[in-house]
Amino acid sequence: MNDPSTFRPRYTGIPSFMRLPIYSPEKPADIAIIGVPFDGGVTNRPGTRHGPREVRNHSSLIRRVNQVTGAAPFEAAQVVDGGDVIIEHPYELVAAHGDIEAAFRDFRTAGVTALAVGGDHSITLPILRALTGPDEPLGLVHIDAHCDTGDDYFGSRFQHGTPFRRAAEEGLIDPKRTIQIGIRGSLSSADQWQFSYDSGMRVMLIEEVYDRGILDTIAEARNVVGAGPCYLSFDIDSVDPAFAPGTGTPEVGGFSSLEALMLVRGLTGLDVVGADLVEVAPPFDPTNNTAFLAANILFEQLCVLTGRK
Amino acid sequence: MNDPSTFRPRYTGIPSFMRLPIYSPEKPADIAIIGVPFDGGVTNRPGTRHGPREVRNHSSLIRRVNQVTGAAPFEAAQVVDGGDVIIEHPYELVAAHGDIEAAFRDFRTAGVTALAVGGDHSITLPILRALTGPDEPLGLVHIDAHCDTGDDYFGSRFQHGTPFRRAAEEGLIDPKRTIQIGIRGSLSSADQWQFSYDSGMRVMLIEEVYDRGILDTIAEARNVVGAGPCYLSFDIDSVDPAFAPGTGTPEVGGFSSLEALMLVRGLTGLDVVGADLVEVAPPFDPTNNTAFLAANILFEQLCVLTGRK
Amino acid sequence: MNDPSTFRPRYTGIPSFMRLPIYSPEKPADIAIIGVPFDGGVTNRPGTRHGPREVRNHSSLIRRVNQVTGAAPFEAAQVVDGGDVIIEHPYELVAAHGDIEAAFRDFRTAGVTALAVGGDHSITLPILRALTGPDEPLGLVHIDAHCDTGDDYFGSRFQHGTPFRRAAEEGLIDPKRTIQIGIRGSLSSADQWQFSYDSGMRVMLIEEVYDRGILDTIAEARNVVGAGPCYLSFDIDSVDPAFAPGTGTPEVGGFSSLEALMLVRGLTGLDVVGADLVEVAPPFDPTNNTAFLAANILFEQLCVLTGRK
Amino acid sequence: MNDPSTFRPRYTGIPSFMRLPIYSPEKPADIAIIGVPFDGGVTNRPGTRHGPREVRNHSSLIRRVNQVTGAAPFEAAQVVDGGDVIIEHPYELVAAHGDIEAAFRDFRTAGVTALAVGGDHSITLPILRALTGPDEPLGLVHIDAHCDTGDDYFGSRFQHGTPFRRAAEEGLIDPKRTIQIGIRGSLSSADQWQFSYDSGMRVMLIEEVYDRGILDTIAEARNVVGAGPCYLSFDIDSVDPAFAPGTGTPEVGGFSSLEALMLVRGLTGLDVVGADLVEVAPPFDPTNNTAFLAANILFEQLCVLTGRK
Amino acid sequence: MNDPSTFRPRYTGIPSFMRLPIYSPEKPADIAIIGVPFDGGVTNRPGTRHGPREVRNHSSLIRRVNQVTGAAPFEAAQVVDGGDVIIEHPYELVAAHGDIEAAFRDFRTAGVTALAVGGDHSITLPILRALTGPDEPLGLVHIDAHCDTGDDYFGSRFQHGTPFRRAAEEGLIDPKRTIQIGIRGSLSSADQWQFSYDSGMRVMLIEEVYDRGILDTIAEARNVVGAGPCYLSFDIDSVDPAFAPGTGTPEVGGFSSLEALMLVRGLTGLDVVGADLVEVAPPFDPTNNTAFLAANILFEQLCVLTGRK
Amino acid sequence: MNDPSTFRPRYTGIPSFMRLPIYSPEKPADIAIIGVPFDGGVTNRPGTRHGPREVRNHSSLIRRVNQVTGAAPFEAAQVVDGGDVIIEHPYELVAAHGDIEAAFRDFRTAGVTALAVGGDHSITLPILRALTGPDEPLGLVHIDAHCDTGDDYFGSRFQHGTPFRRAAEEGLIDPKRTIQIGIRGSLSSADQWQFSYDSGMRVMLIEEVYDRGILDTIAEARNVVGAGPCYLSFDIDSVDPAFAPGTGTPEVGGFSSLEALMLVRGLTGLDVVGADLVEVAPPFDPTNNTAFLAANILFEQLCVLTGRK
Repeated sequence: MNDPSTFRPRYTGIPSFMRLPIYSPEKPADIAIIGVPFDGGVTNRPGTRHGPREVRNHSSLIRRVNQVTGAAPFEAAQVVDGGDVIIEHPYELVAAHGDIEAAFRDFRTAGVTALAVGGDHSITLPILRALTGPDEPLGLVHIDAHCDTGDDYFGSRFQHGTPFRRAAEEGLIDPKRTIQIGIRGSLSSADQWQFSYDSGMRVMLIEEVYDRGILDTIAEARNVVGAGPCYLSFDIDSVDPAFAPGTGTPEVGGFSSLEALMLVRGLTGLDVVGADLVEVAPPFDPTNNTAFLAANILFEQLCVLTGRK
Repeated sequence: MNDPSTFRPRYTGIPSFMRLPIYSPEKPADIAIIGVPFDGGVTNRPGTRHGPREVRNHSSLIRRVNQVTGAAPFEAAQVVDGGDVIIEHPYELVAAHGDIEAAFRDFRTAGVTALAVGGDHSITLPILRALTGPDEPLGLVHIDAHCDTGDDYFGSRFQHGTPFRRAAEEGLIDPKRTIQIGIRGSLSSADQWQFSYDSGMRVMLIEEVYDRGILDTIAEARNVVGAGPCYLSFDIDSVDPAFAPGTGTPEVGGFSSLEALMLVRGLTGLDVVGADLVEVAPPFDPTNNTAFLAANILFEQLCVLTGRK
Repeated sequence: MNDPSTFRPRYTGIPSFMRLPIYSPEKPADIAIIGVPFDGGVTNRPGTRHGPREVRNHSSLIRRVNQVTGAAPFEAAQVVDGGDVIIEHPYELVAAHGDIEAAFRDFRTAGVTALAVGGDHSITLPILRALTGPDEPLGLVHIDAHCDTGDDYFGSRFQHGTPFRRAAEEGLIDPKRTIQIGIRGSLSSADQWQFSYDSGMRVMLIEEVYDRGILDTIAEARNVVGAGPCYLSFDIDSVDPAFAPGTGTPEVGGFSSLEALMLVRGLTGLDVVGADLVEVAPPFDPTNNTAFLAANILFEQLCVLTGRK
Repeated sequence: MNDPSTFRPRYTGIPSFMRLPIYSPEKPADIAIIGVPFDGGVTNRPGTRHGPREVRNHSSLIRRVNQVTGAAPFEAAQVVDGGDVIIEHPYELVAAHGDIEAAFRDFRTAGVTALAVGGDHSITLPILRALTGPDEPLGLVHIDAHCDTGDDYFGSRFQHGTPFRRAAEEGLIDPKRTIQIGIRGSLSSADQWQFSYDSGMRVMLIEEVYDRGILDTIAEARNVVGAGPCYLSFDIDSVDPAFAPGTGTPEVGGFSSLEALMLVRGLTGLDVVGADLVEVAPPFDPTNNTAFLAANILFEQLCVLTGRK
Repeated sequence: MNDPSTFRPRYTGIPSFMRLPIYSPEKPADIAIIGVPFDGGVTNRPGTRHGPREVRNHSSLIRRVNQVTGAAPFEAAQVVDGGDVIIEHPYELVAAHGDIEAAFRDFRTAGVTALAVGGDHSITLPILRALTGPDEPLGLVHIDAHCDTGDDYFGSRFQHGTPFRRAAEEGLIDPKRTIQIGIRGSLSSADQWQFSYDSGMRVMLIEEVYDRGILDTIAEARNVVGAGPCYLSFDIDSVDPAFAPGTGTPEVGGFSSLEALMLVRGLTGLDVVGADLVEVAPPFDPTNNTAFLAANILFEQLCVLTGRK
Repeated sequence: MNDPSTFRPRYTGIPSFMRLPIYSPEKPADIAIIGVPFDGGVTNRPGTRHGPREVRNHSSLIRRVNQVTGAAPFEAAQVVDGGDVIIEHPYELVAAHGDIEAAFRDFRTAGVTALAVGGDHSITLPILRALTGPDEPLGLVHIDAHCDTGDDYFGSRFQHGTPFRRAAEEGLIDPKRTIQIGIRGSLSSADQWQFSYDSGMRVMLIEEVYDRGILDTIAEARNVVGAGPCYLSFDIDSVDPAFAPGTGTPEVGGFSSLEALMLVRGLTGLDVVGADLVEVAPPFDPTNNTAFLAANILFEQLCVLTGRK
C-alpha cells in the first residue's frame, strides 16, 4: 500500500488515526488504535475526554516508516483505527470502566491487539482487566510522572491516581516485573507511593534517569520486565510541560520529546501485548504540540507492538 | 468603608470575590458570594470546576458603586466571600449535589443570602432544594441559551441539561412564574424542551429578544415573575461566545455583554431571594473576558439582591 | 433516525460534518457537505486549507432540528459528508480550480446537491462552473465583507478577490439578480468594486444593513434574487472579527453571529441550488469560535437547501 | 500615488503606519501618525508601551479610500509615519510627559498635524499642552469607558485616570465644549467622575447611547463641541472587550466595532486640530483584533483630520 | 498537619501560596512567602506586577514532601503566606523600593524569614537592604540569564539591570562570595557586565554549565559561597523560554526545568538567610507553565531555607 | 557606533532587523539581512510568508556583542536590513523563484553578502542559483529535521521538500561537502531521502547528535565541509517544537535552543559565503518564542559571516 499522501495532502480528509482505515468487525485486523474519551477519573483538571479527537487530528502527519529502525508497521501488520469506545455511563466511574472493559474484551476476542488513546489514566485498569486475568499477571513498563499507586481519594477507589495499585491487587500485573520511569514532583505525604516500593515495583525517579541516561534506563526496563508478556502504559505527563503542556496534572522537570521517543523505541523486542497513551488534555494545549507528540509516541508504540517476536 | 483600592492597587493581594472579606460563621453577614467548583454534570466540555477561582481572580476590578443606578451594595449590606463549597464526593453526581445542598442550607440557616458561582448548571437544583421547599415554589428568571428542562441523558437524571425540569417536578419552582430568556441553538429533537412549554414556562427565544429589545424583555420578565419571591439563574452561555467563549456548551447568536448587564439590572425591585452565575469554564477563555464579564454580572446580581424591598 | 447523541457523547468519534455518514457513490444522497481544502488564491494570510477539518471538528455540536423554524434537514433529505475534494495540483491555481470543478461536476452528475466548505473564496468560481453553464446564469446571494469583483492581482486572474467578476463574465451568474451584503472596509482605489456597480449588482454596505435592520435586508435580498434558481455564497469574513477572528482578510465592523444566522435563515424558500461557506482559517482562531459559527451557518444553509420548493 | 499593494503584497516590508513614508524634518508633511510608546501612567495592567509597534504591524491592511465617504486622505494631504516619540525618562512620569510635550511641540512648530498612537491615556495631557495654550481651550470629543477626570491616585497627579481633569484645570480644554461618550463600569466612589459633571462636561453613559443610537449620539457630540477647534481622543477601551480585548483596564458592555467606526466618521466636518488613539495593550490581544481595529479607527480619524474645512 | 488536599480538591478555595495560612502579626511564623507586585524597574516588557497572583494560583498543586530529599518543609517550620507588600508609591521607583524595604524589615524584626515572589529584579536591592547591613555583606547565589550588574539606564540608577552592582557598592553582598549562573545572550557592549568580573564575582555562562553539568555547577556554587550566610536570588529568565515564556526579557538557550530544580536543590545545607524568585510575567504565559514552574522552584527554595543548619 | 538602546528603549521604533539601517543601493554595505516573504512551496501548513516581519519585530532585543566569542558583527562589517524581496508572482512557484533569484543576484552584484530570512525552504534553491554557478558547487551545512532531497510532489518539482536535490542536480552544491544535521521523523517511504545517501551527503540523525554531543557534531560538520566556500541553511524546524512551535512541518525530538546556538556558533571560521534561516511561521507561534529564537540564530549566523577569513 502506498502512502495516502501521494494522492492527497496530509491536512485533508476526515481524520482517522494516522489516516488509517476504520475498523469494522467484518474485516480482519491485527492492531487497532482505539480512543477512550473519558476523564471521569481525574483529580485536578479535566479535558482528556477530548484527547482521542485531537490526537487523531494531529496524527495525519505521521508517515509510514520509522527512520531510525526502518520498521514499517503498516506493512508488518494490518493496522486500523478502532474508533472510540462508547461510554454509556459517562457519569459513573465504575460503570464507565465496565463499558471500557467490555469494549476491549471484544477486541481481544476478535484477535485484535489494542493500542488505546485516553482519556485519563484510570482507563488502564479496565483495559488490563480485558487483556489478562488474575492468574496471568503481565509485566509493565509504566512511563509517567506519578506512580499512580495511591489509595482512595475523595471516596473514589478507582480514580486516576490508583490504577496500578488496583491492577496489582487484582493480580493483573506483576509488581516484580513492573518498572515506573520518570517519577517526580512533590508528594502529598511521604508514603504516597509506598505501595510501589512495598510491592516490589522498580521506581526510577527522573533524577536517576538524568544521571544514568536514556540508554541505561532502557536496559534497566528490559531487565526488570524480562521475556514474558508485558503491557506498556505511557502517560504524557511523563514528558516535561514545555514539550507537552496539554495535560491535567502537569509536573515540571520531565523528559524531553527526544528522550521519550528513544525510551519507547528502546523497548522493541519485548513481548508487549497491549499499550496505551493517556492524559492528553487538548484544552491546555494552545500549540497542539501535545497532541502531535502523542501521535509520534503512538507511532513508536505501534512499532514496538509490530516488532515483537 | 473606603474602597480598598485607595490603599492597594487592584491587581495585588490574595483574590477573594471583589476583594471582599472572607466569611466566618462567627461574624454576621447578609450576603455571601459562594463558589461551587463542580463540573460533574456536564454533557460536553468540562472545566467549570475552575470557574470560581478565575471569577475571583478577575473580580478585583469590580468597584463599589453602580454607575447607572447609584446602588452601593457593599454599603447596603454586609457582603462577604463565602469560600468554596467543599465537595466531598466529586466522583458521584448525586452525592455531590448533597454536599452542595448541605452547604447552602447552612448559609440559609445562618441567615445569609447566597449568590453562587458555578460550576455547571446542575448545581442549581441542590441550591434550590436548600433555599425553599416543595410547598413554596419560587418564581424563576432563567437567562440561558438552553431551557435545561431535558430528560435523562446517558443514565443521568441530574446532569446540567435537566435542573429546571427536576426543580419543577420537585415543586421548587413555579413554572407559571418562570421565564427562560435567550434560548437558541439547534435541538436534538423537536421536543427537547417540551417540558418548558407543557408546564407553562415562558420561553423567549433570542430572536424574540432581538425583535422586542431588552427593555421590553425586562418588562416581560417582571410580568411573568410578579411580586412573589423568585430565584435568578444566569448561565454565561446565554451571552454570545464572542463575548464569553469560556463555557462548555457554547451557542452562537447570543446576548452582547451590554444586553446581559441591562437585563439583569432591569430586574431590580423583584423579590430575588437567591441567585447564581454558572458555566464559566476558564480553560476555554484565553483572554479571561468570560471570567471578567461574569464578575460584572455578579455585581449587577448583587445590586439586585440588595435592591429588593 | 434518532440523534446519534443518544448513544454516544458529541465529543467522541471520528468527526464527519455534523456526525453525518460518509458519502459513497454507491449509496444515494440528496445533499453532500463537501470540504475544499485549498487556499492557493489568497492575497493576505493563508490557512483556509485547514478550514474543512476544523469545521468538521466543531460541527459535532450541531443537532437535528432548527429551533426557530422547526426544520429537520436530516429528515427532509439524505444528507452526507461528501469528504474533501482531492486537489491534485495544489501548487497551480488554475489547475486546482480544474480539480475542484471536476469533483463538483461528479456530484452534480450523481444528482447530489453540494454545500461546499472552503478553502478560500476563489473556489466559488469552479463550483459555479460545475453547477451551471454560460447560458443559464444563476441568481446570487453573496454575504461578504468584500465584493470580490476586483481585477487581476499580481498576475493572477483567478485569486480570491475576483471570483464574482469572472463568474459574471463567464455568464455563470446574473448581475441583475445578484446582491452583495455586508460590504465594508477601506478600498485600494475608488473603483476597486466598480464592476459590481457597472454590471448591475446590488451592493449593500454594512452601514445600510445597520440602518435598515436584518429583516429589511432579507426582503431586499429576496427581491433582487427573485424566484429563479440562485446560489448562496457565505464568506465568514462578513461576520465581525470579534465573532469570527479565524479568517485571512478580516474587516472590522461586520455582522454579529445572530445577524448572520437570521440573514441566512431569512432566505428560506428561495430556489437555492447550491451554496458554500468559505474563508475559515483555523490558525487565527484560538477559541475555535469561527469554526463553530461556521458549522452553525452551514446548518442554516442546509435548512435553506432542504426548504426550497 | 498608487497603492503600494499594486507592487508588493501587504504582509511584506518593514511596517510603517499604513505603509506610509517615514517622516523626516527635511521633507514637508501635513499630518504625521506618531507613536508614543509609554505606559508609566497605568493603574492596572501595563503593556501599552507595545501599542505603536503592533498598530503599525496590523495597519498594513489599511487601504487608500474610505468606502463610505469616498475620502482619500493620502491624496488630500501629505501623510507620514512620524516615528515614535523618544522617551528619555521612562522611569519618571512627569519627566516622560515633558519628553512627549517637547516632541509634539516640534511637530506643531513644523506645521504638522499630529495623530498620536499610545501608550496610555496619560499622554493626552502633554499632547494638549503642546497643541494649545491656557488661553485657548479646545473643545473635546472624548470616546472612552472612563471619564478620566479622577484625582490623585497613589501619589500620582498625572496617571491615566486624570488627564482631562488636569487639562481642564490648566485651561487646555473647555469643559462646556467637552463630551465624553461610552462611559460605564462600576465606580470606586459615587463621586469618582464628579469633576466632569461639576465642570459642565457632557457625559453620555453607554446606556444612553444604546437608547438613542449612534446617529443621535453623533448629533449630540457635534452640538456640544460646536464650530470651534477641538481635539478627538479615542480610548480603545470604549469598545467592548469582545472586539478589543487588548487593553489594560477593560470594561464590559461597550461599543461594537461598527458603532465605533460610525461614531468617529460622524465627526467629519468638525474643526479637529489633533487626535489620539490610546490604550492598545498587545500582550492581552491574542488575535490581534485590537491592534487591527485600532488601525481602522486611526484611518477614520485621519479622514476626519483631512476632512475639516 | 494533614495535607489540605485530603479534605478539598486542589483547584478549589481562595489561592494562597501553596494553600498556606495567611500571615498575621499576632501569630508566630518561621518563614513567609511574600508577594512583591511591582514592575516599575523593567527595561523591556512589563507585567511582573501580576506575578505573585498567578504564582499563588498555580502553587495549589504543590504538595508537602520533597520526593527526592524527603524534606517536609511545612513540618520543619511554620510557613505562611505573607501577603503582598503594599506599594504605596507605584509610580516612583525609589520610593517604591522604600516601601518594599520597610515591609521586609518588618518581617525581619518579627523573626520571619522571607521568601519573596516578584515583581521585577529591581526588588532584590531593597530586600537585601532590609536583610543585612553594609558591614555584614552576604554571599550570593544568583541564577539568571543576566548579571544585572549594569549601570544607569535612561536616567535610572535602580532599574532591574543593576541591583547586584548597587548591592555590592552598598556592601550588602560580598562579590568574592557571589556566583552568577546561567548567564547568556548578546551584550549591548563588551563591558556590560564588567562590574561582575572586576569586583570578583564568579560568572558561569550557560555554556560552561552545559560543559560541566549541573552537579559540577552546584559544587562550584557551594565552593564560591562557602559556609557563611548567603542570599539566593532566582530569576525565572534563567530558564529557557520554552519552559518559562512568561518573562519580560527572555533569553534563549537557558536551563531546562529539571536542571533548574536540581540546581536549587543542590544548595541544601548552605546558610541561606533569604531568597527570592523574580520576573514572572503572566501576560506572556499562555499555558501558565511559567507560574507553575515558579511555584515548584519556590518549593525547592523553601526546602533549602528549612534545610539549613 | 553606539548601541541605539542607549537613546531609545528596544521596544520602540519601526522594527528593522536588529534595528539596523535600511539598505539603499546608494550606500555601501557588506552584509544585508533580507526577508523573503514567500510560502508557495509548502506541503503542509502555510504561514511563513509572515516570517520576515515577525523576526524583524522580535529581533529588536538583539544587542551588539556575542558574549561567548566576543564577536561584534556590526563593527566588523557594515550590516543593513535589506528589506523584503518583492515577489511579483506570488501565485506561481517557478516564477516566484525567478523573482527571488533576481533579487539576490542584484545583492551579489553589489558586493553584498546575503543573509536570508524565509519564507519556506524552497527559497534556498533560487538563492543558491544567484550565489554560485553550476561549475562552482558550494559546500553546505544544512541544519534541519528533513533532508529536503525528495522528489516531485503533487506535480511540483520545486516545493520545499526538494531544494537540495535540485541544487545538487544543478551543480550548485557539492554532495560530498554537504552535511545534513538533525534529521528525524517518520518517512513516507524507506527511500524518501535516498538521494542524500546516494549522492554522498553526510546525514546525521538527531539520535547520532544525541549520542555524540554538540561539540563532536560540530567537528564532523567542519570536517565534511572543509576549507572551501560553503553555504549555511538553517531550518527552524530542526529545533524541537517545544522551543520553536511556529513552523509548518514540525517534528518532535529536535534540538534545544542552546544546542542550536552552539551548533551555528561552532561553524565560525568556515568560509561561509551566504546563509539563510527559513520556515518561521508566526501563525503557529503564540508566545513568539520561535521568532525570537530565529533572531538569535540569525545573530550567530551573522557572527559566522563576519568571522570568516
